[in-house]
Amino acid sequence: MSSDRLIEEFNAGKPAALARVVSIVENHRDGFEQILGSLHPRTGRARRVGLTGPPGAGKSTITSLLVKSFRDQGLKVGVIAVDPTSPFTGGALLGDRVRMESVALDPGVFIRSMATRGSLGGLAAATREVADVLDAFGFDRLVIETVGVGQSELDVARTADSTVLVLVPESGDSIQTLKAGVMEVADIFIVNKADRPGADRLRNDVELMLGLRKGVSFGNVPAHHGIDLKRLNPARLAREAAASTNPTQWTPPVLSAIATKGEGITDIVAAIDRHFAYLEQSGTLRSRRRERMRERVMDVVGQKVSDRLWKDPHTKAWLEEQLPSVEEGTATPFAVADQLLRQSGELVRGEERT
Amino acid sequence: MSSDRLIEEFNAGKPAALARVVSIVENHRDGFEQILGSLHPRTGRARRVGLTGPPGAGKSTITSLLVKSFRDQGLKVGVIAVDPTSPFTGGALLGDRVRMESVALDPGVFIRSMATRGSLGGLAAATREVADVLDAFGFDRLVIETVGVGQSELDVARTADSTVLVLVPESGDSIQTLKAGVMEVADIFIVNKADRPGADRLRNDVELMLGLRKGVSFGNVPAHHGIDLKRLNPARLAREAAASTNPTQWTPPVLSAIATKGEGITDIVAAIDRHFAYLEQSGTLRSRRRERMRERVMDVVGQKVSDRLWKDPHTKAWLEEQLPSVEEGTATPFAVADQLLRQSGELVRGEERT
Repeated sequence: MSSDRLIEEFNAGKPAALARVVSIVENHRDGFEQILGSLHPRTGRARRVGLTGPPGAGKSTITSLLVKSFRDQGLKVGVIAVDPTSPFTGGALLGDRVRMESVALDPGVFIRSMATRGSLGGLAAATREVADVLDAFGFDRLVIETVGVGQSELDVARTADSTVLVLVPESGDSIQTLKAGVMEVADIFIVNKADRPGADRLRNDVELMLGLRKGVSFGNVPAHHGIDLKRLNPARLAREAAASTNPTQWTPPVLSAIATKGEGITDIVAAIDRHFAYLEQSGTLRSRRRERMRERVMDVVGQKVSDRLWKDPHTKAWLEEQLPSVEEGTATPFAVADQLLRQSGELVRGEERT
Repeated sequence: MSSDRLIEEFNAGKPAALARVVSIVENHRDGFEQILGSLHPRTGRARRVGLTGPPGAGKSTITSLLVKSFRDQGLKVGVIAVDPTSPFTGGALLGDRVRMESVALDPGVFIRSMATRGSLGGLAAATREVADVLDAFGFDRLVIETVGVGQSELDVARTADSTVLVLVPESGDSIQTLKAGVMEVADIFIVNKADRPGADRLRNDVELMLGLRKGVSFGNVPAHHGIDLKRLNPARLAREAAASTNPTQWTPPVLSAIATKGEGITDIVAAIDRHFAYLEQSGTLRSRRRERMRERVMDVVGQKVSDRLWKDPHTKAWLEEQLPSVEEGTATPFAVADQLLRQSGELVRGEERT
């Protein structure tokens, strides 16, 4: 099928065309740029929700419930399940997907699992591109689910408009690894499995880290929880306190849920709606999407540079010839990189501008 | 202090010069390339061990014991503790470091905590550079410890010669997230806290995933463990079986340990030594280090390109001007990226070569 014809069928809402376009875009097959370019004007309508958290936190169950709730409102939903730790699609994710079968037969729902690309690709970039495809196809809500709380997962979650972080009492250790960086990136926190021991303490800890609890002596925090109290800076506490009276500020709520029983989902959906309203009213949606677009273009630039450089056999071969002298210590990686950039055309005319 | 004088003191083994050089290199301060370039011929002597695993697996305890064991052999040891989840140095890592105080007062030991850089930097690249500094200073062993099992952590661990993955019975869920990618990157597996319930099963699961267990019916694997049996491909099983009789092949051992009691450390040190002997005898050390060097140069090239492009105010400003039309859909990220690369000098003269 020609690219034009594929786009035509895509625009006509044909599911087979959607699946095909997603595959082309996800794998950067020939013509993906043209396709993404032609879809681009139709993007920007879907609300994108990122869902992240440690393994076993119940993200898939919550995703299923969110999908169901959105469907009940008559909205079409796309789900992108991303697993940055696996070079393949499979294993745990497939297991998780089984639980989603109940929604998978609904034509108003599209589910796609994505695994990591090579280090030269970029999972966050690929996720964003597939999300753009679903957005252009007409899905009203996109749920981007990613496993884990590391940098790669964060980058993926940050491609969304609203980021939801799911925690569970037994992931006690993981609060140690959350730290301020992750706390600051999430718009909504969920303490799932809220009927288990430790749920109150987890909730308390998260609220403390967010500065939501006022008048609480910091001495009360159990030291072994690994929370660095110096991070609870006064400016932040003041800002958060002001938020409750200022409709253009957002205070991340900490919600309790027992997803396996469906408890707390109404609150989560309401919080997502409230967050989106805040994003629109405060102008944050606009600035956040502009920031994402800036990152997007910068990603594309980086990808193009690396494609042009490393897919060129002369550059590759030349680099290979230099490696022995780098190993022997007669050349340095920096000198080789400089020469490569100079002779391979040359980048940014870096020399002339500095 | 001039750069030359700093290098002179560094070469004379002054600890203050070491700390200063590490800071300059870690933060890419002015002159870091010259410094790394001048140290470069002195690198390549240290054996680099990467240690990774989920939070709470006991990595820091094992690191401390490794350091002690290396010191008992009269070897100087550098430790780089990397935390990709945190934008700051602190919290959990600081807590961990307290446990290492016993070794921290020894001048034959140097410990450095590193946190994540911005997404344009690269934690793996920075780790490698700091490791090069410690190598050049004369440390015989480098232990690179990183928290987590995601892609960023893997990239960090892969900068080492030998990669050790630490697991614990309670990280049952994490075996779901390990998958083939991580299993293939580790040279040595440790089941720590081996006296806890589930240790045997974890060990069994890991050995199955590695194909170490022959004649075991796959039907015996508990399905809920999320192991995809299709990954246990016959070629791999055959290769692993051959390994036991071929000294130039490596079969990753699965070792048990109770690090808090010091149990199993002798075996771990022996396995690391055996692995290094294998790396040298099989020629793998040479090919692996060449592969790392290739990645290193490619990283430097990417970093230089992005520095030259995005530190240039004209390029930045021009991009800013384009963003509205990208948002409105009259321009695409790809077209903007193409134009940016064309007009910003450069790049790879991509047009002429394709």
